[in-house]
Amino acid sequence: MLHKVAVDIITIGDELLIGQIVDTNSAYIAKELAKNGFSTEHMYSVSDKKEAIIEAIQRSFSQVDIVLLTGGLGPTKDDITKTVLCEYFQTKLVFSQDVYDDVQELLSYRPNAMNGLNRQQAFVPQSCTVIRNKVGTAPIMWFEKNKKILVSMPGVPNEMKWAMEHAVMDKLKRFFQLPTILHQHIIVYGYPESVLADTLTDWENNLPNSISLAYLPSISHVKLRMSAIAEDATLLSIQMQKQVELLKTILGKAIIALEDKPLEELLSNWLIDNNLTLSVAESCTGGNIARLVTSISGSSAYFKGGVIAYANEIKEQVLAVSTHSLKEYGAVSQQVVEQMAKGVMQLTGSDVAIATSGIAGPSGGTENKPVGTVWVAVCNRHTVKSHCFSFGGIRERVIERASYAGIIMLKELIEYTSLK
Amino acid sequence: MLHKVAVDIITIGDELLIGQIVDTNSAYIAKELAKNGFSTEHMYSVSDKKEAIIEAIQRSFSQVDIVLLTGGLGPTKDDITKTVLCEYFQTKLVFSQDVYDDVQELLSYRPNAMNGLNRQQAFVPQSCTVIRNKVGTAPIMWFEKNKKILVSMPGVPNEMKWAMEHAVMDKLKRFFQLPTILHQHIIVYGYPESVLADTLTDWENNLPNSISLAYLPSISHVKLRMSAIAEDATLLSIQMQKQVELLKTILGKAIIALEDKPLEELLSNWLIDNNLTLSVAESCTGGNIARLVTSISGSSAYFKGGVIAYANEIKEQVLAVSTHSLKEYGAVSQQVVEQMAKGVMQLTGSDVAIATSGIAGPSGGTENKPVGTVWVAVCNRHTVKSHCFSFGGIRERVIERASYAGIIMLKELIEYTSLK
Repeated sequence: MLHKVAVDIITIGDELLIGQIVDTNSAYIAKELAKNGFSTEHMYSVSDKKEAIIEAIQRSFSQVDIVLLTGGLGPTKDDITKTVLCEYFQTKLVFSQDVYDDVQELLSYRPNAMNGLNRQQAFVPQSCTVIRNKVGTAPIMWFEKNKKILVSMPGVPNEMKWAMEHAVMDKLKRFFQLPTILHQHIIVYGYPESVLADTLTDWENNLPNSISLAYLPSISHVKLRMSAIAEDATLLSIQMQKQVELLKTILGKAIIALEDKPLEELLSNWLIDNNLTLSVAESCTGGNIARLVTSISGSSAYFKGGVIAYANEIKEQVLAVSTHSLKEYGAVSQQVVEQMAKGVMQLTGSDVAIATSGIAGPSGGTENKPVGTVWVAVCNRHTVKSHCFSFGGIRERVIERASYAGIIMLKELIEYTSLK
Repeated sequence: MLHKVAVDIITIGDELLIGQIVDTNSAYIAKELAKNGFSTEHMYSVSDKKEAIIEAIQRSFSQVDIVLLTGGLGPTKDDITKTVLCEYFQTKLVFSQDVYDDVQELLSYRPNAMNGLNRQQAFVPQSCTVIRNKVGTAPIMWFEKNKKILVSMPGVPNEMKWAMEHAVMDKLKRFFQLPTILHQHIIVYGYPESVLADTLTDWENNLPNSISLAYLPSISHVKLRMSAIAEDATLLSIQMQKQVELLKTILGKAIIALEDKPLEELLSNWLIDNNLTLSVAESCTGGNIARLVTSISGSSAYFKGGVIAYANEIKEQVLAVSTHSLKEYGAVSQQVVEQMAKGVMQLTGSDVAIATSGIAGPSGGTENKPVGTVWVAVCNRHTVKSHCFSFGGIRERVIERASYAGIIMLKELIEYTSLK
């Protein structure tokens, strides 16, 4: 088992306490901490009030070794984290030429932006180590007290992520002399978590003691994570590889990937590696597959585009689905979804295509085709494959699951074809 | 000013502390509380450990009047909230026939689901009032102690929302005899928050004391919320209406709506009210507008579909954009985006259309057209309108802002046309 250093995460901001924004910072930080062998004990959200911030810090410092703060570092007067930290650590604000230069450079493209407010960003607590922020005007502040650490980071998610990635995590690992941890991720598709756990009982019981295992389920798949301290990296890597091979014999094709990436990013790799272009024909997913694909930067290299065929006449007129099939089998049918896939591939000249047609709900279901029934098809120039799924009754989930089902089916088609 | 009752929100679950899921429950609950005159003081996330849960409850009860818990109520053995609450309130679990019947009814469609685990859901703490849960197997539990209230709700977001909406909020308002609060929302588009605040300084200073104002900014717009205790609802409604009229003279067309709904739901109303069908032609937004439109159930009544024209040949071949325009002006141009809008309207036979073409980044920018440059067009049978925006450098935000810009421009087109 791994030795863990305890951490609390405190997010600061009135906008959190009126529910105006969802706190995504805590989950991001906690995930990074867990990967690196730290253990998050509590997450707190508190208001921009001095008493609330001081009380939260005091409580956390009495329980854990590290306190990570985000928020309250903007230039306006309701952002008070910096002055509160001065009071807590009994220090004062001093002018930092380095920070001033950074802020000035960052704002250089905006004339007159370097006003009094932004100049104030260059005043930092004397007793802290400033980590220079290259993506925003708020300072990143590192405090040490009685062998404990407090780091104050900006609340803007991409600035906080930059700070974590470029400085904070490494500095924390060095300070607490944490060993490097190796992870092996295994993405498994098509197993509910409980069934997967049942299936893997024997394998799990026979794992070496040095390897710990986590189940990380999401709406579309389960991610397994094996973790161990990398005392002897080569040996460990051989051990983990052996476990992966065992898993492959148990789970076979249900193993989608051995890396920790969103499925849409994996899809990007599969397409690029096989030099394939993609198009989509979406009915019930309504553009969500295209959105996932184009959320990846550089997707224009392999994504041609697609058709959202919500109305039946678009299925007919744009995608060349036969009127007979629509009448005879209905829009949610194998015949129609396969013609949609082939139709969009022809229309766009892409190498492969994904199509969906289903009932996202909450209305529109029938006895034979209840809400959540979705036909998904994938095709290339030679082959078309389709499958009917039941994704339950919640609209949002039906759309999400159908989208990922299409991505996974395309992966199988690509592999099947390249094996031939 | 409103009298406020103080609340803490505690979310329970190891999956929160390893960052596996983002806590969206707290923000939802806090938003509902704020609307109804309660004040959220702290939000805590703690693990599924007895000590952690008890410590959090004790701390909250020493500071606030209401503690709202979510999570830890599943049937498996790592969910311990119910037994911990028994210990905290010094009571014991007793069998509830009502809860048993509810669980059995809920699971009736799944043969053999009523196993030992699910039967356990019917055991509830003797001293609490059970609020019957019609959408899940976990009980909703209401505890009173020294005139303070603790409510334990399921962690599954849609079950928690059901509980809040159907029982918990009303019960809390009755218990603390909170007056009804009237809200008037005003959605303003095209003003950054700081500029809007400057613009409204005089109006804000002249607001009656009984009306309080909140600025609720999001990525695409700012929502203003006027709130007041509804002692005399008719009078108050007249007062608020007067303020809205004043706002209209200051902000004009920047006021998009006077109700609290997402823009895609407002769009749905505008289309239905005007009996119009919609199609979309998306390049840089990559399907996101279609996704937003189809996230609204019932959208098939007015949404025909659309084309994601990521590659230029799709703009040409499917949307009939002229090769000359693409060569002469580039894909990100007024000429091309207007042809895309008209092209998709023609292709689908819709009454109105939205089109986007831009550079979402992070690469692809030039000196003349930096990352974030987006042309958006809207059209009907008679008119096409287009506009060039600069949405900054973050891909995700460029896509989001361009999508909402298209929706707002369509609203203006619809109004403009109906005024003629």
